[in-house]
Amino acid sequence: MENITSIQNNRVKAWTKLQTKKGRQVSQTYLIDGWHLVQEAINHGGKLHAIMATQAQYDLHQAELPLGVPVFFIYDDIAKKLSDLVTPQGIFAEVSLPTANRAPQYIHDGAWLFLDAIQDPGNVGTMVRTADAAGFTGVVFGAGSVDPFAPKAIRAMQGSQFHVQIASGDLKEWITEFKRNEFVVYGTQLDPEAVDLFTIQPQTQFALVMGNEGQGMSTELAQMTSQNLYIPLAGHAESLNVGVAAGIAMFALRQR
Amino acid sequence: MENITSIQNNRVKAWTKLQTKKGRQVSQTYLIDGWHLVQEAINHGGKLHAIMATQAQYDLHQAELPLGVPVFFIYDDIAKKLSDLVTPQGIFAEVSLPTANRAPQYIHDGAWLFLDAIQDPGNVGTMVRTADAAGFTGVVFGAGSVDPFAPKAIRAMQGSQFHVQIASGDLKEWITEFKRNEFVVYGTQLDPEAVDLFTIQPQTQFALVMGNEGQGMSTELAQMTSQNLYIPLAGHAESLNVGVAAGIAMFALRQR
Repeated sequence: MENITSIQNNRVKAWTKLQTKKGRQVSQTYLIDGWHLVQEAINHGGKLHAIMATQAQYDLHQAELPLGVPVFFIYDDIAKKLSDLVTPQGIFAEVSLPTANRAPQYIHDGAWLFLDAIQDPGNVGTMVRTADAAGFTGVVFGAGSVDPFAPKAIRAMQGSQFHVQIASGDLKEWITEFKRNEFVVYGTQLDPEAVDLFTIQPQTQFALVMGNEGQGMSTELAQMTSQNLYIPLAGHAESLNVGVAAGIAMFALRQR
Repeated sequence: MENITSIQNNRVKAWTKLQTKKGRQVSQTYLIDGWHLVQEAINHGGKLHAIMATQAQYDLHQAELPLGVPVFFIYDDIAKKLSDLVTPQGIFAEVSLPTANRAPQYIHDGAWLFLDAIQDPGNVGTMVRTADAAGFTGVVFGAGSVDPFAPKAIRAMQGSQFHVQIASGDLKEWITEFKRNEFVVYGTQLDPEAVDLFTIQPQTQFALVMGNEGQGMSTELAQMTSQNLYIPLAGHAESLNVGVAAGIAMFALRQR
């Protein structure tokens, strides 16, 4: 076990770079922050490369740490440097990004969430967490969507990235291949010309596309789906938060 | 029309105080930020006391501003002082807090959302917005819940505070009085011993209690409800974001 005492330490500099997308792509790893996430990674097959812990956190969780993963002791100021929280817990792990995407033509079942240009890391994180809770198999990040492994997104996922598959790709290709594989692909729109979501029979194999916070789903994708759905809104509300809308749609469409 | 040129101006100081709960209680007003909210206030009966706009925003929206409300010209640095956004639009209004709560014994119909110690302003704002979209009549902020008129909450509401009633009070009293008035009061729990939410027949008159982000609903309230419900979770997910859970529950329970 190595004691890291300086914020100028080379490893600290390398871990700090994981806060950026570029840094994560170079290393093919990302950081998780806090015991809950480290535990989820341990219990659900995350590949751990390093654990960084304050003495206090190490003492608390020592018995549950996996063998063969190097542990580094850090001080509070280093924990603050690694975290985007004001008061981080003081335990982190560096874990592998998921391995390369399965190509969509090899996906044959399950419910899948497609994200078209969703911008807010908190929103995408919440949607991955909800997809997990709704029994979805995977979430596909389309062009223009925020990186799934940004620290704020990871925090909102609460470990669900270890339970559902996370892929990135061109949604035009994913929609085409899914339809070839006899998935129904549902788009979502605010347009009441679309079909009322609550009239659809719940099922186990389909894809659901959620669109950008401001613009909704792109016209191009909306023309490719099997059917476009809307959530009927009462009152004077004009729209829903995209994370809430995704939650309502996923729980309404996925057969329990 | 008055030109406000200095950040030290007395009015600017007074408006800045509306960013705090204490300031809002002294003035019985709060600030809304951005044209969308100002427009919602104008169109849905918000009582406006002042409009503050940069020259550019005034030129854009002049024709839609109500007569009889004083307008103050502000510069970008003052707009930044009044806003908690990095790049505010440059138009604000000072509007009245809702008038005193109706006592719960005088409430005879509609769907109501009760918030038990919800802490995050973004979450409560999203829940008010979703309540509006689900056709709810009002939202009651129980003890320990964040102030509904905090800037971040107001931003997440997107104007829905002008469409649904916002009240604050002791939820023990609200639950008791609602049950006396023959409302069904649903609690929400993570406990699968509770009743599956999706087995409940949608209705138009009821209350739904959502609990604190970490602890859930207080035991005391859980014992007072008519029935406690849970959202069945698939996979390994342990819970849902409270705003998402509230959205799923409101759309499942409210008859359309």
